[in-house]
Amino acid sequence: MEQKTHNNKIQAKVFEELCDAIGRENVFDNIEERVCYSFDATKEKSIPDLVIRPHSTEQVSNVVSIANKHNIPVCPRGAGTGLSGGSVPIKGGIALDLKNMDRIVELNARDLTVTVEPGVVTKDLQDEAAKHRLFYPPEPGSAGFSTIGGNVAECTGGMTGMKYGVTRDYVLALEIVLPDGSVINTGSKTLRSVAGYDLTRFFVGSEGTLGVFTKITLKLLPLPAKIGTVISYFKDIDSALNATDSILIKNHLHPRSLEFVDKTCIDAVRGSAEERIPEEAGAFLLIDVDGNEKNVANDISRIEALCNENNALKTSIAKTDDERVALWDIGRSVSPSLFKIASMKFNDDVCVPRSKVREVLKRVYELSKMYSIQVAAFGHIGEGHIHLNVIYDDGKEMDLSVHNLVSQILKEVVSIGGTITSEHGVGDAKAEFIGLELAPHEIEIMKDLKKMFDPKGIMNPGKIFV
Amino acid sequence: MEQKTHNNKIQAKVFEELCDAIGRENVFDNIEERVCYSFDATKEKSIPDLVIRPHSTEQVSNVVSIANKHNIPVCPRGAGTGLSGGSVPIKGGIALDLKNMDRIVELNARDLTVTVEPGVVTKDLQDEAAKHRLFYPPEPGSAGFSTIGGNVAECTGGMTGMKYGVTRDYVLALEIVLPDGSVINTGSKTLRSVAGYDLTRFFVGSEGTLGVFTKITLKLLPLPAKIGTVISYFKDIDSALNATDSILIKNHLHPRSLEFVDKTCIDAVRGSAEERIPEEAGAFLLIDVDGNEKNVANDISRIEALCNENNALKTSIAKTDDERVALWDIGRSVSPSLFKIASMKFNDDVCVPRSKVREVLKRVYELSKMYSIQVAAFGHIGEGHIHLNVIYDDGKEMDLSVHNLVSQILKEVVSIGGTITSEHGVGDAKAEFIGLELAPHEIEIMKDLKKMFDPKGIMNPGKIFV
Repeated sequence: MEQKTHNNKIQAKVFEELCDAIGRENVFDNIEERVCYSFDATKEKSIPDLVIRPHSTEQVSNVVSIANKHNIPVCPRGAGTGLSGGSVPIKGGIALDLKNMDRIVELNARDLTVTVEPGVVTKDLQDEAAKHRLFYPPEPGSAGFSTIGGNVAECTGGMTGMKYGVTRDYVLALEIVLPDGSVINTGSKTLRSVAGYDLTRFFVGSEGTLGVFTKITLKLLPLPAKIGTVISYFKDIDSALNATDSILIKNHLHPRSLEFVDKTCIDAVRGSAEERIPEEAGAFLLIDVDGNEKNVANDISRIEALCNENNALKTSIAKTDDERVALWDIGRSVSPSLFKIASMKFNDDVCVPRSKVREVLKRVYELSKMYSIQVAAFGHIGEGHIHLNVIYDDGKEMDLSVHNLVSQILKEVVSIGGTITSEHGVGDAKAEFIGLELAPHEIEIMKDLKKMFDPKGIMNPGKIFV
Repeated sequence: MEQKTHNNKIQAKVFEELCDAIGRENVFDNIEERVCYSFDATKEKSIPDLVIRPHSTEQVSNVVSIANKHNIPVCPRGAGTGLSGGSVPIKGGIALDLKNMDRIVELNARDLTVTVEPGVVTKDLQDEAAKHRLFYPPEPGSAGFSTIGGNVAECTGGMTGMKYGVTRDYVLALEIVLPDGSVINTGSKTLRSVAGYDLTRFFVGSEGTLGVFTKITLKLLPLPAKIGTVISYFKDIDSALNATDSILIKNHLHPRSLEFVDKTCIDAVRGSAEERIPEEAGAFLLIDVDGNEKNVANDISRIEALCNENNALKTSIAKTDDERVALWDIGRSVSPSLFKIASMKFNDDVCVPRSKVREVLKRVYELSKMYSIQVAAFGHIGEGHIHLNVIYDDGKEMDLSVHNLVSQILKEVVSIGGTITSEHGVGDAKAEFIGLELAPHEIEIMKDLKKMFDPKGIMNPGKIFV
């Protein structure tokens, strides 16, 4: 485990200034609190100097403006579930905990929009929308505990991307506290707008390095009446991938989700799944379709037939909501089950052109053998997305090999036209690899933009760029 | 008609430099050619000093870099069909005609992506995708003749936005010639990527003011097997809007298109439509649904029932493709038919929160009466979008009243939370109104961004900002 410790370097005078600005009760300098803000879902750890819990835009503005004056890093944080170190305060400073800003400010069903504070948990928003028979599609694996603020900061994707796109496609407007403490509103709460440069989508995915989101307006869709779910097991990856092409390309079906899981993952989840998984399964596909009842029944039966045409070993269709939940529990248990194999994993959330999935998986399994380190693959395969999980036990020598393997995998991915991160963000976990994908001139432009918005570099320093 | 004339102010020495760089045969300085590049679909006219027709990224880079050295404005242009003056060279300089860069570079069906040059006509791309049973959804009214480059520059929307979103939702990657002549690649050709700041979506909708797109990679979807179309006539706007709420909000149907047309428009198209339009019709809705055959039939019959429940005077369902085309011909003829009423129109392509459509239409009709100038409304009403067409005959006094009316309408729109432009762009037509919607600080940030990318201000000067 890496763990940096920072002594509280914030001067008493500045501490008082912060307390005066937002109330002593919202500022925490005891080590017990600070330790809780030192990590996310990666292995990176670094203890902040202070934890601050604002309740309003005004309080965020006050804190950021004081931090800017005194050159103190500010690291915004939602639930801390990120997978790229995005919310780890690697340069110390203030961990800005936004979980108290968790109001659904306005859900207007007729407008098909909702405005929320950043600390709202994604699933809470989805549930609230569903009460109005509306739908917020982005569904990261962490939806049950991650916050909308974090989802927007990382531009998370998730299970429904195949049909519905990713977070950026739903963000209409943002209220942002900039590094100088000023507050801007970007975009429009209308379902369409092109007035001026698109600052909204520029800020989506900026990983907390340009400002703090204090209000987020999202587009909602009519809630599909029904979701149908199929799981289909295949002997090998080729058959599973042939089935995906058959569904999407040859039969132009448009599933809500099209998830893939490889043999290593299947073996890890086999024991805990309610469903009997065929012994010889080398891959499975988990597929959702949605729409009204008749449409779903129609699509599901076509997908079942297409999986069988592609030599499925077994195909199960959820007949009830409980069965559907049980099938998805298999999918959701994949990532945590990998810890049965070893105590550590590094998740390379890459995306490649769909036609290159076979090639990249073949190469990754070869590299895995060469390094004698297991790699398990699952992902939103309909879009060519794969979570390549490098699984290992902790230890210095292993860390070096893991680093080399990760580096080699990312080089292969980029060399066939892929991206080093498709939904987790660069954070500090992949900052050293960004030069594989972006040209020096392109990185310079991004750094110039960062400098324009944050000349003192106080916002989430050390992320995206080394 | 406003018409600025520019003498060819480009020095002989610079002219030679341009000819040397991209070939004399691609540089045009005769007045006949230049006049053809002096206008778009607005009333604005301004003759460029030169017309240049590059064939490659390298040629674009050469031209832009010479223009930058000599402080010559560069105005990129596709088909010149814009509705905000975006491609009118209002400061003279070079009209950069990109229509010769019209190759579909690579359509990879299995990747669900296509890479094109900017001069490809949108419909040509859609037709090519359809050959592979794939679908590029954005469908501006001008799709038959406007170019992808222009669509991306303005972030156009169109008919299918209700279900499929707008141009920005389909742009994955861009090759861009920056104002200094350097070439960058933004984004990734994969279906998902979050590596670094989202320069791609920042450039979408930047109206040619930050650089020239030379290659555009777009996401494609599986082509829906079937489209069903319904037209439904209502006595008044209230009944039509009630039907839209009934379809979207109460019955969570998700149509591909949900278009609205008001009485003034109906009266203008009545004579030329094949369909018999009821005399007492005060509004109609034109609705598309798509999916597989059974799903479409199912949705269409529900929509028919919902329109009838909301007191439709008459509802027609297209039974054949020809009938479908005939129904859409009614929709498509609305805008040109308005010229039967008067020789000029100004199209305010506003968008308001859906729940405010009634209120804004009521206010606009009141203003229309007050100014004695007709305003006709139609638009993508499912999203709260309305083309408010101010119709008038040319004349100086009328121009002033029209300006006042347009200004008053935009004030009303913004005051209820709407946007001054939802798919046409700001251009120079609405540059003076942008301060109604954006705060001074937000405009300053946009201007700073412009300055960062284009310090000499050569790219499409006079657009977006006054």
